[in-house]
Amino acid sequence: MPDQDGGAVKPVTIAIDAMSGDRGPSVVVPAALAAVNENEALSIVLVGIQSELEALLHQGHERIRIVEAADVVRMHERPSHVLRHKRSSSMAVALGLVRDGVAQGCVSAGNTGALMAFGRSVIRMYPGIERPAIAKLIPSLRGRCHVLDLGANVDSSAENLYQYALMGSLMASAICGQAEPRVALLNVGEEEIKGNEQVRLASHMLAQCDTINYIGYIEGSDLFRDVADVVVCDGFVGNIALKTGEGVAGLLIELLEQAFTKTLYGRFIGFMARPIMGKLLRLMDPSRHNGASLLGLQGVVIKSHGNANERAMLAAIRQAVREVQLEVPGRINERLDDLMF
Amino acid sequence: MPDQDGGAVKPVTIAIDAMSGDRGPSVVVPAALAAVNENEALSIVLVGIQSELEALLHQGHERIRIVEAADVVRMHERPSHVLRHKRSSSMAVALGLVRDGVAQGCVSAGNTGALMAFGRSVIRMYPGIERPAIAKLIPSLRGRCHVLDLGANVDSSAENLYQYALMGSLMASAICGQAEPRVALLNVGEEEIKGNEQVRLASHMLAQCDTINYIGYIEGSDLFRDVADVVVCDGFVGNIALKTGEGVAGLLIELLEQAFTKTLYGRFIGFMARPIMGKLLRLMDPSRHNGASLLGLQGVVIKSHGNANERAMLAAIRQAVREVQLEVPGRINERLDDLMF
Repeated sequence: MPDQDGGAVKPVTIAIDAMSGDRGPSVVVPAALAAVNENEALSIVLVGIQSELEALLHQGHERIRIVEAADVVRMHERPSHVLRHKRSSSMAVALGLVRDGVAQGCVSAGNTGALMAFGRSVIRMYPGIERPAIAKLIPSLRGRCHVLDLGANVDSSAENLYQYALMGSLMASAICGQAEPRVALLNVGEEEIKGNEQVRLASHMLAQCDTINYIGYIEGSDLFRDVADVVVCDGFVGNIALKTGEGVAGLLIELLEQAFTKTLYGRFIGFMARPIMGKLLRLMDPSRHNGASLLGLQGVVIKSHGNANERAMLAAIRQAVREVQLEVPGRINERLDDLMF
Repeated sequence: MPDQDGGAVKPVTIAIDAMSGDRGPSVVVPAALAAVNENEALSIVLVGIQSELEALLHQGHERIRIVEAADVVRMHERPSHVLRHKRSSSMAVALGLVRDGVAQGCVSAGNTGALMAFGRSVIRMYPGIERPAIAKLIPSLRGRCHVLDLGANVDSSAENLYQYALMGSLMASAICGQAEPRVALLNVGEEEIKGNEQVRLASHMLAQCDTINYIGYIEGSDLFRDVADVVVCDGFVGNIALKTGEGVAGLLIELLEQAFTKTLYGRFIGFMARPIMGKLLRLMDPSRHNGASLLGLQGVVIKSHGNANERAMLAAIRQAVREVQLEVPGRINERLDDLMF
């Protein structure tokens, strides 16, 4: 199995919190089967209730095995509660497999707060980084853009924002191969005087940093315009902005579907239009863009949407494999030291 | 001219800061002409450099007159600077016409910070309201939703958020005739434990208030889903969320246009699809949704997008007329007293 450079593809093992998300194993198991079938270098460890997983796996697969975890973290449980009482949950056990080197990456569609809390407690963080951030590669008109934080922290200081920028810049280099990714801060205007105190101070810090290609502020409308490769914001802002964007995309897809199904004429036009609307439909399909990275941990941890379907879960698994193969945590770790403020 | 209730339509005078926005009088003057031509009850006062405006007005119009203002507020000037040095600008003079009762409403496409600052200094605020907010009626799948604040304030306290909710609820009643508009706070999740301190405290205050129909938190993805009639957030968050949503819509329109113009086949399908895509195109057309209200002032002040075209400027003028005719400021003022915390 040669990779692009002609070398052998290294085997990858991904642990999946199979009980998590709105649909649990019924989505995770088929996605895992699809993932190992499309990638011969991939092995998967499904973590969860053995009997349930076995029933869904049927004959099983030689590169899928099950690790029993009796407990499940529920969507609305508080992180502090989960940390104390759910040490034997599928989420905690899956993260433990990464810590112990059994797997190189972990995917969970569970409670974000709990995943962050367990992530920090089970897997080491990069030295000097105060808080992990949630980062996602979002599609844009001509390229892609890493956005962080998307909800790990709802009150980021300037120092936090600066650290997200460092991690995001290194991540973009590692994943997209950009030597000097353009890093921007998300703000309510492009002028220097705009924004709140944290953002203005973070901008000052980033402008001082020689090793980051800081390009200044961008507005929400520029997120999809290939203006920046890395966009940094507080998690409260990032989460709401991204979900609003997804909401608009969803609304549009719904309206297109209405137009193309309501009448016989509409159905005919819809059928005829399908081949030329491919790019649009791909860009707007949330299941293609599932999988956010918990950045700050010395291991690959991918958060899937809670309501992911099989295809979306597969996208999240692929994201985990990609980050492991590109050695993202190691490459961030080795360069972070030089960049800390 | 009977209105819907069979009574006579009251005449309305709107003052327009004609020099403001990226395109200034070249957009404002034709929009003003279109507005008076479609509405016989409307008179317009154009505020700006007389010679420029006269040249664009050609023969003029009996219901359009010009008030000279020699100075212009530039897009990037600081509010503090503008307040001291631009008292004779078209923006300040237009607001002064509302204060003096010459006009009942004002429209400006100028610098938002300056408009807020002049608004507060020239026109009185509602008693007890600490800061004005920018509110906009955004379209959704089946209805419409008032969102505020969209950028007037980038660091809102719980008390500020509570006041936005009060004003937004009264505004929705006045504009959309809803007796008990559903009021929600924008947050990163729907559970009680989610969000930052300000949002959680504001939620507690709103839950105590009998006269507001507070329904709790909503997420960004629900903004276009008719879940709430009024959505309240800090201006930093609201500005970025809305611009992100507009960015996605713009990206989509661009992709649709690409698909429908790139090839001969695409152009044919685009032509055939146009009649069934009307609702989608109307919803996504930003020029139809131009015009945000400066809420908190005892007068109608509408902020237009800086880059508004003629059609968008016309939408902003219509918005001003509607708010004057519905007596929005008076109706908010008379009920606000009972609701203050």
